[in-house]
Amino acid sequence: MLRTQVKTQVRIHVKLTLKRLNASYSAPKLSLKDINPHVIEAKYAVRGTIPTKAEELKLQLQEDPSSVAFDKIIFSNIGNPQQLNQKPITFYRKVLSILQDPSLLDTLKSKDCPASFKQQYPQDIIDRAERMLKDIGSSVGAYSASQGIRGFRNTVAEFITKRDGYKADPNDIYLTGGASAAVNYVLQILCNGPKTGVLIPIPQYPLYTATLALNNSHAVPYYLKESEGWSLDCNELIKAIKDKTAEGVAVNCLVVINPGNPTGAVLSKEKMIEIVNVAKEHGLVIISDEVYQENVYHGEFISMRKVLKELQAKNGSEYDNIQLVSLHSTSKGVSGECGQRGGYMEILGFSDELRAIFTKLCSISLCSVVTGQALVDLMCKPPVAGESSFALDHKERLDIFNALKQRSLQLWETFNKLEGIECQKPEGAMYLFPKLDLSENVIAIAKAKGLQPDEFYCLELLENTGICTVPGSGFGQYPGTWHLRTTFLPPGTEWISKWEEFHNEFMTKYK
Amino acid sequence: MLRTQVKTQVRIHVKLTLKRLNASYSAPKLSLKDINPHVIEAKYAVRGTIPTKAEELKLQLQEDPSSVAFDKIIFSNIGNPQQLNQKPITFYRKVLSILQDPSLLDTLKSKDCPASFKQQYPQDIIDRAERMLKDIGSSVGAYSASQGIRGFRNTVAEFITKRDGYKADPNDIYLTGGASAAVNYVLQILCNGPKTGVLIPIPQYPLYTATLALNNSHAVPYYLKESEGWSLDCNELIKAIKDKTAEGVAVNCLVVINPGNPTGAVLSKEKMIEIVNVAKEHGLVIISDEVYQENVYHGEFISMRKVLKELQAKNGSEYDNIQLVSLHSTSKGVSGECGQRGGYMEILGFSDELRAIFTKLCSISLCSVVTGQALVDLMCKPPVAGESSFALDHKERLDIFNALKQRSLQLWETFNKLEGIECQKPEGAMYLFPKLDLSENVIAIAKAKGLQPDEFYCLELLENTGICTVPGSGFGQYPGTWHLRTTFLPPGTEWISKWEEFHNEFMTKYK
Repeated sequence: MLRTQVKTQVRIHVKLTLKRLNASYSAPKLSLKDINPHVIEAKYAVRGTIPTKAEELKLQLQEDPSSVAFDKIIFSNIGNPQQLNQKPITFYRKVLSILQDPSLLDTLKSKDCPASFKQQYPQDIIDRAERMLKDIGSSVGAYSASQGIRGFRNTVAEFITKRDGYKADPNDIYLTGGASAAVNYVLQILCNGPKTGVLIPIPQYPLYTATLALNNSHAVPYYLKESEGWSLDCNELIKAIKDKTAEGVAVNCLVVINPGNPTGAVLSKEKMIEIVNVAKEHGLVIISDEVYQENVYHGEFISMRKVLKELQAKNGSEYDNIQLVSLHSTSKGVSGECGQRGGYMEILGFSDELRAIFTKLCSISLCSVVTGQALVDLMCKPPVAGESSFALDHKERLDIFNALKQRSLQLWETFNKLEGIECQKPEGAMYLFPKLDLSENVIAIAKAKGLQPDEFYCLELLENTGICTVPGSGFGQYPGTWHLRTTFLPPGTEWISKWEEFHNEFMTKYK
Repeated sequence: MLRTQVKTQVRIHVKLTLKRLNASYSAPKLSLKDINPHVIEAKYAVRGTIPTKAEELKLQLQEDPSSVAFDKIIFSNIGNPQQLNQKPITFYRKVLSILQDPSLLDTLKSKDCPASFKQQYPQDIIDRAERMLKDIGSSVGAYSASQGIRGFRNTVAEFITKRDGYKADPNDIYLTGGASAAVNYVLQILCNGPKTGVLIPIPQYPLYTATLALNNSHAVPYYLKESEGWSLDCNELIKAIKDKTAEGVAVNCLVVINPGNPTGAVLSKEKMIEIVNVAKEHGLVIISDEVYQENVYHGEFISMRKVLKELQAKNGSEYDNIQLVSLHSTSKGVSGECGQRGGYMEILGFSDELRAIFTKLCSISLCSVVTGQALVDLMCKPPVAGESSFALDHKERLDIFNALKQRSLQLWETFNKLEGIECQKPEGAMYLFPKLDLSENVIAIAKAKGLQPDEFYCLELLENTGICTVPGSGFGQYPGTWHLRTTFLPPGTEWISKWEEFHNEFMTKYK
């Protein structure tokens, strides 16, 4: 027996004896070193250090307004439109209100119901609510099938069919608690331990790296080309696959975010064909994160599914090996219903065995919130011309869309006026991801404070103006470059002027 | 170089060459053997084979009613009260309806609002909705703080304080998407790979074993004593810890379900003190699943937290090492709002470092659904005497409670009349877990069909009566014993008579 073994055995013996003798023995608490290291490792910058500091400052502002340099926090760190006063779509909310309290239908149908109240509920709202209650069967308070309510999945399939021109099947649709839950399901299934690699664009939405860390698998980064409007270069993809394969990592999945988060770039059809070809040749499941598909301000959104279906239609069985998961959400677009947790994934090309695994995994969490499922139905089938809610609904959507488009341009133009900031023109999504040209001075000061240079910039921006953003280091960026992500959601232009003023002072101060 | 190595290299070379020569190379699809084996391993019987068969039969019934032996499926496999026509609490739904469409408040306040409509919204409903909208700050469509809306967590803390007589802190409360999401968070944090063990009662709610399988950790079973009303025996706990520790497994957590699912047993205070002592001595985090705390029909519910607080109050710092996670949900009780995905966990005794890990993990999924969070607030603070909704609310609660209590007794009495069924008296929850005395004949026939004997019984029950239950093997049971879990939620007694008839025929047929 080795000496150390003897020592350990003696120690265990003493401890056991102590425990037996002393009924009041209290074992030590669990500490960080005892828990799942992958949970410790996972990082999610969108709610990381800068937003946490912002929450602290918000409290400080309430308690002692004179102690901070601003009168409110402007949360530009997260695509959360309704927090920044974007109004919900009226049609959605009237229907959801009825689903929560179906007795409103009785009121509306009673002959005592005053005309002024009836007017608020055009016939198509009543019809829709009744149809959806029928689909639900009992109540939004009952668990639904784990895959989601069949009638709502029919609506999603109709929406996809119309969008792409290729028939969709409700059996391929899973209603999920936002797109985040879908990402969780897919990566949990695909991550077969530390030898699995998943291709992630850099910069990326950090949900992906966080989920991969939780599942003990590799994020295999591929860099987007900033100078070409953050375009995707398939040679980068192939190089990343080759390098990681040489390291013994099995790269089995490719994440594409289109329109891009945080970049705002929109993929062209030609590029998407190239991507599908890489996936075909290398046996990669494609996760196409399309939650910003309504948020395209320049150019056109084409779904990965449509590109795949066209290739399949033209090339016989050659593309039949492609396995595609497409994601959508009620949180973005012009809906902005983040807190309602609605979303879906469509899975194509998977075997029945694997489909059963998706369904089982969903069933362990029983079902996604039924009102969120209802919102997916509403998003996928808004009122159309001729229906009584159409005029208002159409106007609301257009107003929100135009406001987003205008704000994106406004902020982009401001950035491009400023010294030391360079920003690609946003084509879509809700964000800008400008490059910061930070001096050696800034880099040294940040280092001394234990911060990344872009983190230092964001912290100074927050403390001086109340504007909360996320440093580029939270999304990944080419080594030696510095960025930040900001939404362009806050209304008005005052905050932009404040930022402009701050930036110029910062650049002068830290020349 | 070994011969097999050479072969492999040649194969890879050929494959690579083929790929280079042939642009239309299509890699094989991912299959079961490529994916996360822990996802394959995880089982969730509540939505397993029998319920899946029931869904198929439901479709068959729609398409060809004459092809089946019953006119409807009775879903007794899952605690889903509103699917079985339990009415939602009016107060909840009126408030939620306003939260979805706050313009209802304008209607109610306008002078044109007819009295008949106003009557449906007593003043306390309006006040509550206004307070909650203020707590939300913007809209239920905005992401909230990841831990949940602060005002709602204050309400939960007040509820716990009042229930236990010991002050609760809103900072310890996390609002989660049902209790299932909370179980996911906690086990994901605690599961430090295959050397981690978590004590799970047998029979158990299969969410626990499924989540442990997903997290690649050990379920360490401890058997409940059926003959003593499914009571918990701490010697069983200690034996299980000792055996697993000897195998090199670090047992770091103890799951207690009280009231029990599927057993219906309610823990006594004395037993809970023993449990806390075991946790204290062995350094176990206690997960106290208390989602059925309102569903106690005989005896009294005492929270694990209350027992711990009393021990701490009486014994100085001796119990300060206890780390407790308590779970509650809006899905059960008299609320039964399963589809709304509301729940909370209270975490006590964890270091700031570990608390930060809980918060970070929640932040990766952004936030739980805001209307579900609102429902937690409503559940924790129903109308009280003197408030205008009190009379109706109180009556609704009492009616649901009494119906549940009555049905549990009715079904229990039926079971105990029957030959070959033995059932412990239910004290709480929504289930009975009767023991089936199955003949050698049944065991042999089931084996020939590749089924467990209790699975065979449940399948025959389903196919002959439309009653859908879950075999005991899905929850775990003492080897050589056979059970099933059924809810007592279906209204009426007709289904009970059908079961009775089926059972007698089954026992005669398979003597």
